[in-house]
Amino acid sequence: MDAAEFRRRGKEMVDYVVYPDVEPGYLRSLIPEEAPLEAESYEDVVKDIERVIMPGVTHWHSPYFYAYFPTAHSFPAMLADMLCGAIGCIGFSWAASPACTELETVMLDWLGKMLKLPEDFLAGTEGSGGGVIQGTASEATLIALLAARSKIIKLIQTDHPDRSETDIISKLVAYSSDQAHSSVERAGLIGGVRMKKIPTDSKFSVRGAALQKVLEEDRAAGLIPFFFCATLGTTPSCAFDCITELGPICNAEKIWMHIDAAYAGSAFICPEFRPLLNGIEFADSFNFNPHKCCSLIHVISHLISLQHWQIPLGRRFRSLKMWFVFRMYGLKGLQAYIRKHVGLAKEFESLVKADQRFEISADVVLGLVCFRLKGSNELNEILLKRINSARKIHLVPCQLAGKFVLRFAVCARTTESRHVREAWSHISHLASELLQELRH
Amino acid sequence: MDAAEFRRRGKEMVDYVVYPDVEPGYLRSLIPEEAPLEAESYEDVVKDIERVIMPGVTHWHSPYFYAYFPTAHSFPAMLADMLCGAIGCIGFSWAASPACTELETVMLDWLGKMLKLPEDFLAGTEGSGGGVIQGTASEATLIALLAARSKIIKLIQTDHPDRSETDIISKLVAYSSDQAHSSVERAGLIGGVRMKKIPTDSKFSVRGAALQKVLEEDRAAGLIPFFFCATLGTTPSCAFDCITELGPICNAEKIWMHIDAAYAGSAFICPEFRPLLNGIEFADSFNFNPHKCCSLIHVISHLISLQHWQIPLGRRFRSLKMWFVFRMYGLKGLQAYIRKHVGLAKEFESLVKADQRFEISADVVLGLVCFRLKGSNELNEILLKRINSARKIHLVPCQLAGKFVLRFAVCARTTESRHVREAWSHISHLASELLQELRH
Repeated sequence: MDAAEFRRRGKEMVDYVVYPDVEPGYLRSLIPEEAPLEAESYEDVVKDIERVIMPGVTHWHSPYFYAYFPTAHSFPAMLADMLCGAIGCIGFSWAASPACTELETVMLDWLGKMLKLPEDFLAGTEGSGGGVIQGTASEATLIALLAARSKIIKLIQTDHPDRSETDIISKLVAYSSDQAHSSVERAGLIGGVRMKKIPTDSKFSVRGAALQKVLEEDRAAGLIPFFFCATLGTTPSCAFDCITELGPICNAEKIWMHIDAAYAGSAFICPEFRPLLNGIEFADSFNFNPHKCCSLIHVISHLISLQHWQIPLGRRFRSLKMWFVFRMYGLKGLQAYIRKHVGLAKEFESLVKADQRFEISADVVLGLVCFRLKGSNELNEILLKRINSARKIHLVPCQLAGKFVLRFAVCARTTESRHVREAWSHISHLASELLQELRH
Repeated sequence: MDAAEFRRRGKEMVDYVVYPDVEPGYLRSLIPEEAPLEAESYEDVVKDIERVIMPGVTHWHSPYFYAYFPTAHSFPAMLADMLCGAIGCIGFSWAASPACTELETVMLDWLGKMLKLPEDFLAGTEGSGGGVIQGTASEATLIALLAARSKIIKLIQTDHPDRSETDIISKLVAYSSDQAHSSVERAGLIGGVRMKKIPTDSKFSVRGAALQKVLEEDRAAGLIPFFFCATLGTTPSCAFDCITELGPICNAEKIWMHIDAAYAGSAFICPEFRPLLNGIEFADSFNFNPHKCCSLIHVISHLISLQHWQIPLGRRFRSLKMWFVFRMYGLKGLQAYIRKHVGLAKEFESLVKADQRFEISADVVLGLVCFRLKGSNELNEILLKRINSARKIHLVPCQLAGKFVLRFAVCARTTESRHVREAWSHISHLASELLQELRH
């Protein structure tokens, strides 16, 4: 498959329905029950891609895909992936593949500079900070929590050498927003520590006073607060925890502040969105998933050995993707990409606002619009069901303050203004049908 | 890069030295300190691959690479990776990409059947078992340990509802071979539980009596044994824990037995090596890294929700690789691949045995030969240093019963008998030089 074919196939793919029309278990009956004894030809395998795989694929890169959040996809990233596969090294130590370790360190510094992270998040030539690519944001959060756990245990044992690790762990408590991603709660489960959710304000944002209150209660109850995971750009509504308030509290209370900016982080490369990251100077670690690089990344400081910056020991040569993407887009190209998506979301927002039957459910800051029909949750549930059953576009819902809300996330690289307008006219049409039915 | 170019580049790569001649930090000065503002051309990027990356790559797929263990590499796997990149979905739930979830389930069943795993390790159409692809073997071990931890907590709380989770965790104890991979110890650290090493016998194998003894001591001390990680094919010497003895003990004592067969597992698709897996019927979970698929996989039963079978929430369409590889090689092709590697190791073993200056340090069962010069550790350390400094071939050492031992692992797809003989004559020549110098 060469570049020309990639392009051609990419265009074909746009013609697929965005959301597949299959039932659970559809695939098993389409292929043999066992691996073949004799080798098959490449042609046979390729034929089956169309027959077996494509009917069951949700097309994340269709311009009609508005569900979840965007995932990475770009021509340079795919080329880099091929090179990564061809080199096929496992960079679990410097010697196992020096270029793999070194390019990653430098690329994470490039990224840190693009985001204007504080100096101590960079490796530089003799820095103590730096970044490392993680498989997913879930792993980044887990690693941050484990690092914080290890740090607090050492700190306590310095003063109380007879206190056992398991005894200390049994008193630890970690915190996150009540809007935080489920992976944060899971990090607590894996690490075997208590995890509490801090209530958010009317903008779905954790404020300093809310954290302070819980900290005081927990200290009074003999617990040891040690970790706060702030979210910049929550999954339901892209809300931002107030880290300029939360950071000083965490620093004063010796609580590790981790910032999970999985979705929103990419936008901080644009000067107009960088203020959303103000407060980073109070953080101990930070992670986000760069758009268009496919890999998910995390930048962390204060950890001692690079070897312990991730769960798996083996690692692929993933920084090649960043190198290819950064160079073949350039910072300006990446900024333009972000701005286009935010612009499309703003366009969708104004279409919704112009329709009196609908309401906007949360501030539109980046590429996500949370909206709903004015009225009951049931009404909105039916609308969403009809939208997804029609298979023309694909959305997923969220709950905001007890309300069932539709999420419109600008995802694909190929999404243009005409797709957004088409999507809105489709939603609006289905809403009209639904409301008319209900009137009868 | 099309198929023809892949082939051409692959041949070129053989001409690179296997182990790079660079100093730590070599790369940073070769590239700019920041990402470019404007986009660069693909040609510029490609030129830099030769200038910046290749001089620092350890060539894992060179026929002169005999270090660590083999990693996956094959033309079908690379093609599948391209398709995976092109589809670019994130299969974190069935709906997020049905084909991604379903192909993975069926491929893990194909693999289970190739290995003749017991029925309850398969998903089938209504099985309770099944498999899932993990990022690495480290993650597989961690997941097994966490599943076991969760199971024992539930079990104890059923009888003692007032006993807290943190209190139970503080009494738990997990076990592995003293030859187990460092990732097993790390899984214990992450899970916040005690991890003890069971001493091995003269074949570097854990026996039933050794485990039984420690279990009795620990129960007497009020601890709760809950997890044993058996290794089939240890990293230092490819030794096999005696799971036919260990399995019944674990079952009787209600200890979760996980089998880590990261390296050796692939060989079990050959009937002549399948007896090495006897005892699997006592296991709760099993993982290994299939050769030539690049992804690392783990098959586990008794877990409840597929969603919790891995640390990350997001997942790529990794089963495509297995599908391509299984079909384009066929079971016979994969068996031939394994047999060729074992044959090459046996060939190397006989070359070593024919030289009275050397000794074999552990049974050669699969593709790994542990050997050393008869004499001191220092002597062997110098020999290895000279081998790696010459950069013609690349080996890593291990420690076996206090002895410094050289590991010769047949790794590359392209390794043939002539490469093995060439490697041996090179080693033998360097040994002669060294011994001669010492005589003077």
